[in-house]
This record gives sequence, structure tokens and C-alpha cells, in this order.
Amino acid sequence: MPRRININADMAEGFGAYDIGDDATLLTVVKSANIACGMHGGDASVMRRTILDAARHGVSIGAHPGYNDLWGFGRRAMRVDPEALEDLVAYQIGAMLGMAAYGPQPVTHVKAHGALNNQGCVERPLADAIMRAQAKVAPGLIALVMPGTEMEAAARAHGLTVAREAFADRTYEDDGTLTPRSVQGSVIRDPAVAAERVVAMVRDGVIVSRHGRALDIGFDSLCVHGDEPTAVAVAKAARRALETDGVDIVTLPEMLG
Amino acid sequence: MPRRININADMAEGFGAYDIGDDATLLTVVKSANIACGMHGGDASVMRRTILDAARHGVSIGAHPGYNDLWGFGRRAMRVDPEALEDLVAYQIGAMLGMAAYGPQPVTHVKAHGALNNQGCVERPLADAIMRAQAKVAPGLIALVMPGTEMEAAARAHGLTVAREAFADRTYEDDGTLTPRSVQGSVIRDPAVAAERVVAMVRDGVIVSRHGRALDIGFDSLCVHGDEPTAVAVAKAARRALETDGVDIVTLPEMLG
Amino acid sequence: MPRRININADMAEGFGAYDIGDDATLLTVVKSANIACGMHGGDASVMRRTILDAARHGVSIGAHPGYNDLWGFGRRAMRVDPEALEDLVAYQIGAMLGMAAYGPQPVTHVKAHGALNNQGCVERPLADAIMRAQAKVAPGLIALVMPGTEMEAAARAHGLTVAREAFADRTYEDDGTLTPRSVQGSVIRDPAVAAERVVAMVRDGVIVSRHGRALDIGFDSLCVHGDEPTAVAVAKAARRALETDGVDIVTLPEMLG
Amino acid sequence: MPRRININADMAEGFGAYDIGDDATLLTVVKSANIACGMHGGDASVMRRTILDAARHGVSIGAHPGYNDLWGFGRRAMRVDPEALEDLVAYQIGAMLGMAAYGPQPVTHVKAHGALNNQGCVERPLADAIMRAQAKVAPGLIALVMPGTEMEAAARAHGLTVAREAFADRTYEDDGTLTPRSVQGSVIRDPAVAAERVVAMVRDGVIVSRHGRALDIGFDSLCVHGDEPTAVAVAKAARRALETDGVDIVTLPEMLG
Repeated sequence: MPRRININADMAEGFGAYDIGDDATLLTVVKSANIACGMHGGDASVMRRTILDAARHGVSIGAHPGYNDLWGFGRRAMRVDPEALEDLVAYQIGAMLGMAAYGPQPVTHVKAHGALNNQGCVERPLADAIMRAQAKVAPGLIALVMPGTEMEAAARAHGLTVAREAFADRTYEDDGTLTPRSVQGSVIRDPAVAAERVVAMVRDGVIVSRHGRALDIGFDSLCVHGDEPTAVAVAKAARRALETDGVDIVTLPEMLG
Repeated sequence: MPRRININADMAEGFGAYDIGDDATLLTVVKSANIACGMHGGDASVMRRTILDAARHGVSIGAHPGYNDLWGFGRRAMRVDPEALEDLVAYQIGAMLGMAAYGPQPVTHVKAHGALNNQGCVERPLADAIMRAQAKVAPGLIALVMPGTEMEAAARAHGLTVAREAFADRTYEDDGTLTPRSVQGSVIRDPAVAAERVVAMVRDGVIVSRHGRALDIGFDSLCVHGDEPTAVAVAKAARRALETDGVDIVTLPEMLG
Repeated sequence: MPRRININADMAEGFGAYDIGDDATLLTVVKSANIACGMHGGDASVMRRTILDAARHGVSIGAHPGYNDLWGFGRRAMRVDPEALEDLVAYQIGAMLGMAAYGPQPVTHVKAHGALNNQGCVERPLADAIMRAQAKVAPGLIALVMPGTEMEAAARAHGLTVAREAFADRTYEDDGTLTPRSVQGSVIRDPAVAAERVVAMVRDGVIVSRHGRALDIGFDSLCVHGDEPTAVAVAKAARRALETDGVDIVTLPEMLG
Repeated sequence: MPRRININADMAEGFGAYDIGDDATLLTVVKSANIACGMHGGDASVMRRTILDAARHGVSIGAHPGYNDLWGFGRRAMRVDPEALEDLVAYQIGAMLGMAAYGPQPVTHVKAHGALNNQGCVERPLADAIMRAQAKVAPGLIALVMPGTEMEAAARAHGLTVAREAFADRTYEDDGTLTPRSVQGSVIRDPAVAAERVVAMVRDGVIVSRHGRALDIGFDSLCVHGDEPTAVAVAKAARRALETDGVDIVTLPEMLG
């Protein structure tokens, strides 16, 4: 039986006259797209276009809610009241479901963006707020989370179907957290290195920390990035290596189904 | 058989720390609330709160999409590409449907806001864009429009259920358009005058222009405003007078049902 | 020789169609206005109007820069890069100086708003960024700061003229910090209590903590708020009591001059 | 005596994480930069960086105010109250003057952006509002305008120093207006064609309409664009051809001085 894995990436983060990220290329690499919902980036027209582009590539789609901080691109950590945060996430999931009326495919997952995701991983009240919103507005969708975090725990506590992601281009510490970007080598920029690494990860089903420790972290999806040339090259190399190794790249629902 | 009419008003137009309008009072006057969707005004938390407040008052709810122009409160006429406008409206209806998961009642209508509505009344491509969005995202909802306009024509052309509104506090020209605000007396600020007028309108089923001409314009709903003290007083007086006259004030679905 | 004190308040925080705060009343209470600069609140027209209103009341004016977070009203703590923050403050001071061309009076001080001020009080790199901006764009202006904080230290380190503010409606801890709002009684809402308190503060030149300890904190200005009815009543009572006690209420430049 | 001309381009229109335009290349082509001021595009950090980059290239700088419409990039025509518009322009000029404290060079001109400029060219009340703002906040700066328009008339009426711009990559009608973009051939995309055209324009001091008519329109500056690859190639070709022809490319103050 062939092995398989999902690959996901953030997309649709342009706004008005502004473009960002190489969505056209990413859509040939991933099988699930996290679509920005107009708060940290994205707008209604970009969402609609990306939904249709994703459909043409057989890529499943998810809502990618973020902080209401366009200037900061949702990457500034901030203090937010959990109640207000829940509303903000519910609003964005709703907007995504509305725009998905233009595409042939349903919305099948939700993944939080940037600082919202990062803070949710370590602050349970925020994670609970995010998952309450999802459970309220779209309880049937998959919650795509980083395993071993408060996000995973909150998603399970709210009865949501969980998919866990690992990072193709980041190293891990022995405790399962990502190596901070400030540490030399924490972001993998060499396509060959990344390719070899993800093939091993998928073959063995384990993530190995940068100190060589096999981590007990399962994963259903590999997250790749599209912000910079090396990120796109890394993503392409990872996909090619996996396919060469006989791994099927599938959508998130296929992966869990 | 008792006569009946719907009364509607715009609401939920606060944003973050900012309040605007006297929603608490309006909810005791109207039976349908047009809820701002976060573009010209409103935010996710205000939407949720208003949805719940409306439910407590037996007030039906609708999406109230507007231009993405918070500073101008959606009142600045602007040139917008119809395609982009359609997306913008679809997004807002979707967001409203998402937030409505928090309330016991369904969303039952859509009414365009401010300059978007005004321009839609006279520019068919814009009206079509608005109605395409509604037909795509929420085809079962009522389109609340000004009768005799391109908005009504577009709503019917897209197969939507139409409700027509008349204004309780504005005078009409002989051709059925509203008297421009710049004309002395075009805005009715005397509660007694407004009360007498709406009672006659509902009793006779016709709108009389400021020159005394009976207009052939049917209506299902009276629109009242909440921006200023006189507007709220006018709205309250209109409702009281109608009830005294034996008119049932009903929700928009009840009115059409 | 008559004693004297300055009173300051935040103002001009409306935005487009939105009003907030009771500026008309505050202008009869204070002698220095901190004018929002269009980021956390405020816009160009509100700034111009407030500058002219302040002039009519003999109230000196200052720039009141905040985070670029309109929804959060600049009250959400957030992680900001000091370089970017410096630019943001420089921009707002420049905008304020531009709008001040419409008034007869010069801009004479700068006071940071909300979370920007709060974080600056305890994080020296942020305080330095704020003061670098002021030293670059408007080195002759007074920096209005909370005494004993990193903001005061940074202002002095950058060679700026410093004015120190005390709060008329907040209690203090023994270490000179404000009692957190979450503590019962930390916000003084009784006008009589506030009046008696500020008279004692100005008479004795010391702030007494809520445990009765006399704090070694000098101050040149009393800060009052205008967000809620009790705040305005407290502000008015404080001013009246001071004047009854023979204290001159003067502008910030007069206070320092 | 060598002939000379200024070349100008819009710049600094990125926002937060978003880049737009090829500023690095444009700075090697132009001698005056119109710097976006944070409303239609741009932010404080982009302004500061561009001011410093311009200084390194000997490029003079101007404020480039636009509508407060980030999503529409200031290109959506809209109805704006002239009073509010004046404030909006004053604010942006002030912000630009503030940020210019970071550069060695002074701000020397103002040029309106996009729809604001377009509407100002034909609506005198808007043109007057723009020029009132400039006359109030920065009366010594050059107003860079399209000749023969209400913008030029208003600038002169307010006593401002005027510089007139012609377009390197657009054709003209016989009445001196730009050929609408919808007309085939109205935008010149062939670098060789543009180069030949601007050399003739500068040599003869006249603009020739697309029907061959010599227009009586003087100009001090050529405007080039940086939005797309052909625009940048056109701009580079135009500059090279002018220099080959012995024309000095100078800053706007040098051109007028």
C-alpha cells in the first residue's frame, strides 16, 4: 500500500493592488491551501480567485484566520480578549464559507495564521477561543494544528477532527518545539537538505530534532512556505523527492479519510 | 383581518471602541435589523451582540453589506468594479451567516448600505453585482430594496424574493424618488407629522409625494433611522401610531409569508 | 505666590462618522490636550477641529501618537519592532505638526497613548524608540511622561524637556506604579474623593499610595479622562476644587516655563 | 547651453509586509520621487527608507498624498467633501515633512496621487482644496501638476510655484488631455517608441497628439511609471535616449531654479 502525506501552504494573502507570495507555484506543490480571510491579509476577490485556482489543481481549501492587523500581516503578537478573538475567527470562517460558494469544492479545514497560531499553541484560553469559533460556525471542518500544543488539545476538547502538521523547512528542538528563527540553521534553505529530510520524516513517520533525537510527534501534513525564493524551491524539492520515493501527495480530507 | 407592516433599521455599525446609533431603542421599534458586516462599519463582536439582542426582541436579522470604506462610513459614492463589488458583498453575507451561528434565529434578508445602495438604485451593473452575490451565497434570503429602482429589477432578474421598503422620515418626488436631502423639508423631523404620514401610508397602501400625488409604489417595510435624536423619536412615534391604528408590526418573513 | 498645576487629557479620538469622548467638556477642564494622530484613533478633520477648539479655550496642544491599531483603539499590547515604532511615532508627530498649521498656537508637547505608553514605561527599547522619534522630528517639544518610568529615563537620555504627570482618578501602589484596574477601588469614580485627593496632592506636592505611603514622585500635570460620565464628573470636580483652593490651572509650557 | 529636464515617478507605495513597484530601479532613472504618505499606500517605515535611498541617488523628494483608500490604492474615484479632502492632504504633507527629518534633503514638491489627482484636474473645488492644504502647511514647496488643468489653475491661484509634467508613456488627444487607457495604443509599451518620443518632446519643447497635432503645453518634468516590467523598461529607455541626446536629467528644484 502506497504511503501518502498531505502538503499545505498559506495563500491568498494579497490585498487590493498588493501581491505577496508565489501562489501560482505553490498550487503545483501543495494539496491543501490555507486561504487568508481578509484580516491579516487577503480580500474577497483574492479569496475567490484562489478558491477557483485551487479547484483547478485539485487542492483542498481551508480558512486561514488571523489577527485584524493588516500592517503587521498578523505576525505581531498581541494581547487579545478571548471573547473578541472568538468572534474574529468566527467572522473569518463565515466569510470563507461565503466565498466558497464560488468554487466547486467545499471548505474542509481551518488553520490559524501567524501570531494567532503561535500564541494559541502556548495559551490555552486563546486556543479554546479559536476552537469554540470553529465548533460553532463549522464543526465539521478539520482543525489543522501543530501537534503537542494547546491548539491540538483545544481542538480535541471541542470535538473537532484534528490534522497535525510538521514543518518541511524548520528544525525542531528535543522538546518538539520549533527551533527559534534566531538560531543559525533553524530555517532550512537548501532544497536538497529539505528533500532528504522530508523523505526520511515521511518514511519513518517521525521527526528528528536537530540534536538527533527522534520525537514522538505524528503528523498528517507538511507545511511549506512561499514567502521567498528559497522557500518555494525548498517546497518544490520536497514534493519531488517524496513522489520519487513513491509517496502519494493527497488532500487533507483524503489523508484523514 | 388586521393590517400589518414591517419596520426595519440599520444597526450594529459600531467598530472596536466606537459606538454609533441607538440600537437599544431601535430594537424596541423595529421588527427587522439590517446588521452591518464589518466593512463600512461594524465588527464581529458588535454583530454577535446585536444578533443576540435582536433575538431577545423578536427582531429578524439581515446582512447589511457596504463599501470597504470605514472612514467614509460607506456613504462616499465611489467607482467600483462590479466584479470586485460582487466579491465584497458575497464576503459580507458569508461573514454574517457565520456570526449568525451564535443566535437562535436565521438570517432572513440582505439590504445594501449607504452609497452602495444609492448607486445600485440607479446603476444596473452594480445592482446586478449585488444580487449575483446574494443569489450565489444566500439565494433563499429576501432582498430588501427600494421599489421601482434598478435594485428591485436586478433582484427579480436573479430570482430573489423581494421586499420593498418605504421611508418613514423622507418625502418623495412625483416620480417616486426620494426628495434630495438638500431640499427644505425633505427629512421629516416632527414625530407627529411622521406618525400621521405612516398611518396614512399603511392604511391606503400608497405613498403620497410632497406635491400630493399618490404614487403607484407598493411597500412591505418602513425604514427608520437611528442616527440622531429626532430620527429615533420619529421612529418611536411612527410605531406607536401604527399600533394605535391597529396595525401589526411584523418581521420581514412574516410580512411576506 | 499662587500655586499652579497643569491638567491634561486625551482628545480628538473620533474617526470619520464615529465620535468618542466628551471633548467639549474636557476643553473646559484641562489646559493641555493630547491630540490623537490618526493611528489608534483620530483623523485629519478631527485633529484640525480640536486644534481650533483648544485654541479658543486657551488649551495648549500636543501630539498623542499610538499604535496603528484602530480596532483596538491602541489599547492592545503588542510586540513591535523598535525601528518600526520609531517611524510610526515620527510620522504621527509630523502629521500633527502639519495640522497645527491651521491653528494659532504651536504644538508644545508629545504624549504616547495607551499600550504604547504602558509598554514604553517598562520596556526601555520602546521608550528609546519613542524618544528618538521626538528628538528627531520635534526636539523642542515637551515629553509628557509618567515619572519614575523608562519613558522618563529615555526622554532625559535624549535631551528632551520632561513634564511628569500624575493621575487624578487612579490610586498608586507603594512602588509608585498605578494600582491595576482589576483591583477594587483602583479607579476613583467619586468626584468628591477625587477632588479632595488632588487638592492634597497639589498642596503637598506628593502622591500618597493607597496604603498611605507618601511617594517621592514629583509631577507637573494631572491627567484626567473623558471616556465615561464619572470620568468627566471627576475631572470637573478636581478642577473646581483646585481653583477653590487657590491653585492656578496653567498650560504645560506655562507650568514648566 | 545644455538642455535639461526632470523625470519623476511615484514611489514608496508598499505597506507593511507588502511591496509594490520597482523603486530600486526607478531611483536610477528619475531625479524626483513622489513619496506615498500612508493613505492610498506607503507607511512610515517605507517613507523613511525611500527618503534615504533617494538621497543616495541624488533624487529630490515630494509628498504624494492620495485618498484614504488602501484597498483601492487611491485609484477609485470617489465623492469627497472638499473640506475633509483639504485636511487629508494637509495631514499627509505634515507626515511627509516629519519623516523627512530622517533624510539629509528637504521635501521640495507635492504631487497628488491617482484618483485624487485625476478628479482634481477637472473639478476645481477639489483642486482648490488640495492647493489650500499645500499653501497652508508647506507654501514653499513646488506643486507638480498636469498643465492646462484645474490643478494648475488652482496651484497658481494659491500662489504656489508650479512644475508641469508630461507623460513619457501615454499618448495625448488634440485637446491636451490624455488618451483614455481604453483606447488601443494609448499606453506606450515599446521602449524604443517611448525613447524616440520623449527625445522629440524635450528637443522641440512640445507634446504632439496622437493625431499629429503640436500641443501648446509646456512641461518641466516627464512622469514615468514603475508598476509593470514594460513601464520600467520604457522609463529606462527614455532616460538613456535623453542622455544620449545630450539632455541633463535634473531634480525638480534644479529644473525650476
